[in-house]
Amino acid sequence: MNTIHIAVDIMGGDFAPAAIVEGVGEALDLFGDKYHLHLVGDPKPIETELRRIGKWGDKRLELVPASQVVDMGEHPVSAVRRKRDASINVAMNLVRQKKAAAVFSAGNTGAAVAAAYFKWSMIPGIERPGIATVFPTEKGHFLLLDAGATVDCTPLNLLHYAVMGSIYSQTILHHKNPRVGLLCNGTEEGKGNKLTQAAFQLLSEAKNLNFVGNVEGHDLFSGAVDVVICDGFVGNVVLKSCEQIAVALGHMVKQQIMQKLRWKIGALMAKGAFMELKKRTDYAEVGGAPLLGVAGVCIIGHGISNAKAVRNGIRSAGDFVRLRVNETIAERIKAMPNNS
Amino acid sequence: MNTIHIAVDIMGGDFAPAAIVEGVGEALDLFGDKYHLHLVGDPKPIETELRRIGKWGDKRLELVPASQVVDMGEHPVSAVRRKRDASINVAMNLVRQKKAAAVFSAGNTGAAVAAAYFKWSMIPGIERPGIATVFPTEKGHFLLLDAGATVDCTPLNLLHYAVMGSIYSQTILHHKNPRVGLLCNGTEEGKGNKLTQAAFQLLSEAKNLNFVGNVEGHDLFSGAVDVVICDGFVGNVVLKSCEQIAVALGHMVKQQIMQKLRWKIGALMAKGAFMELKKRTDYAEVGGAPLLGVAGVCIIGHGISNAKAVRNGIRSAGDFVRLRVNETIAERIKAMPNNS
Repeated sequence: MNTIHIAVDIMGGDFAPAAIVEGVGEALDLFGDKYHLHLVGDPKPIETELRRIGKWGDKRLELVPASQVVDMGEHPVSAVRRKRDASINVAMNLVRQKKAAAVFSAGNTGAAVAAAYFKWSMIPGIERPGIATVFPTEKGHFLLLDAGATVDCTPLNLLHYAVMGSIYSQTILHHKNPRVGLLCNGTEEGKGNKLTQAAFQLLSEAKNLNFVGNVEGHDLFSGAVDVVICDGFVGNVVLKSCEQIAVALGHMVKQQIMQKLRWKIGALMAKGAFMELKKRTDYAEVGGAPLLGVAGVCIIGHGISNAKAVRNGIRSAGDFVRLRVNETIAERIKAMPNNS
Repeated sequence: MNTIHIAVDIMGGDFAPAAIVEGVGEALDLFGDKYHLHLVGDPKPIETELRRIGKWGDKRLELVPASQVVDMGEHPVSAVRRKRDASINVAMNLVRQKKAAAVFSAGNTGAAVAAAYFKWSMIPGIERPGIATVFPTEKGHFLLLDAGATVDCTPLNLLHYAVMGSIYSQTILHHKNPRVGLLCNGTEEGKGNKLTQAAFQLLSEAKNLNFVGNVEGHDLFSGAVDVVICDGFVGNVVLKSCEQIAVALGHMVKQQIMQKLRWKIGALMAKGAFMELKKRTDYAEVGGAPLLGVAGVCIIGHGISNAKAVRNGIRSAGDFVRLRVNETIAERIKAMPNNS
């Protein structure tokens, strides 16, 4: 098997550079010679961190200097345009120059989207990118896209998300013939806003797509569908609301339990169950969300990525390249009749 | 204090007519002579249920026959148009004829919205109705609107939701100077889709409104805002996703706990804490969501409304009338400069 070259944005993420470099170290330990990693960022802290974890001088690593960083709060498009030597731009350039096959970044999500959009082209026929996020459910997981790359979508954008999401679900998440649902305010015919009503039509007519119709918020976590399609505004709001309600419920449970000794003891005894559940729903297991539609491979890590998330994100990027996801997407889009 | 006449749709709801009539009975027991209730629906089952709970012949009750029902799965607009003698239509007519001041229904939500829209007029200056739903949080609760009445909104619709939501929050939920947030895919300037960017402008310029800017999914349950504004598509998806994730998390916790005896015993000991929390977040405490913007008072109950939810919904309808929420909304809208 050929070694896959992956550019890692060392400067992006709430715990960068330490957590990112630690993730790189774990990837080296676990994946052997599978990957050659280009570490993009300020060389000094990268060297310090590599020495700390005992990986300085490892031949599977290469330092690529970048003098700037796009911060988490910055306006993505203007920052990416202004900071030409930002780590995310330099990482994307490595792919454009064919020195690397993929990028992993846990930095400013909008900046990763903008940099990929500017530095790479789109896959022919696809107009707008989408971020695909994995959600845990009672029975497994589902993929939702777009989680925030494109806030104003056309019906055709949503159709393309369905195609790309299906291919990703099948290739990477091993769902056979993934069921695709359109996120809507109800499952009955005639429900939906102008966008989803038009998209429903396109999705119903599409070939090679297992479109099962509208799904509503109630259906999301029941395991009824494998891929959920929506525009990036709705997807982002749903993603963040769901993340937050889980956290808020956890706090409320803790608050309540602290009020009686009996409850406290019981909760202590059952603590292991909660730890197991936490592991089952840990974002770090997934390791990142692919940016789909661009002519290159980019895995976007959660801002709070720890070493485990980074290591799994690097593996996701590698799988994406190895299993030729973009090539399959390009072929499928080319074969579609409404590809203009 | 004058007795307030309220029309109750006895036929609407998953557990109608039994649960609705039981709720009527609880309202009579708890609220004395505050309300005179018009029970709208098929007289026979209503009589049976009233006899069962020992309220048959109560002078505070009046039977209003309606020979049809809009079912939960029916297309709201066509059903409301076709079934002229549906309980929801007859209830709305009672308000139009000034025989009642408000309607409570736990039936098909879309049908209640459509019937109110057709039978009543809108408050002058307001173009589209919105459903305001109360969400529990760690520190209390917040109001979200629109939860599904209007799926394609204009920026002006969102401004009117902000005004109406503020007034409801202040008058009924006792928030002084309620903080209003616009639901968005990020809090930074420049975030949002075309709709929310235009609405942001209108909201920033509005007087007598405590607009605090964009809020994202992460902020919803932290108690950062009292009123959250969004279009009915987004609101409905968020409402149902949040309801469902809470249920799914509960199932996942149970699944996990059943795997070890130690965990089971601990969970049994701590059970009381979970029951308390369930009570704290019980939708039935709130009793229903007001339909705002229409020239009449309509409280929409959850489809799964039990007696307690119905009783509290009737109280909400009464408070809405007594505290003159619609009159305040009409005055505030009339005074707004962009009221065309």
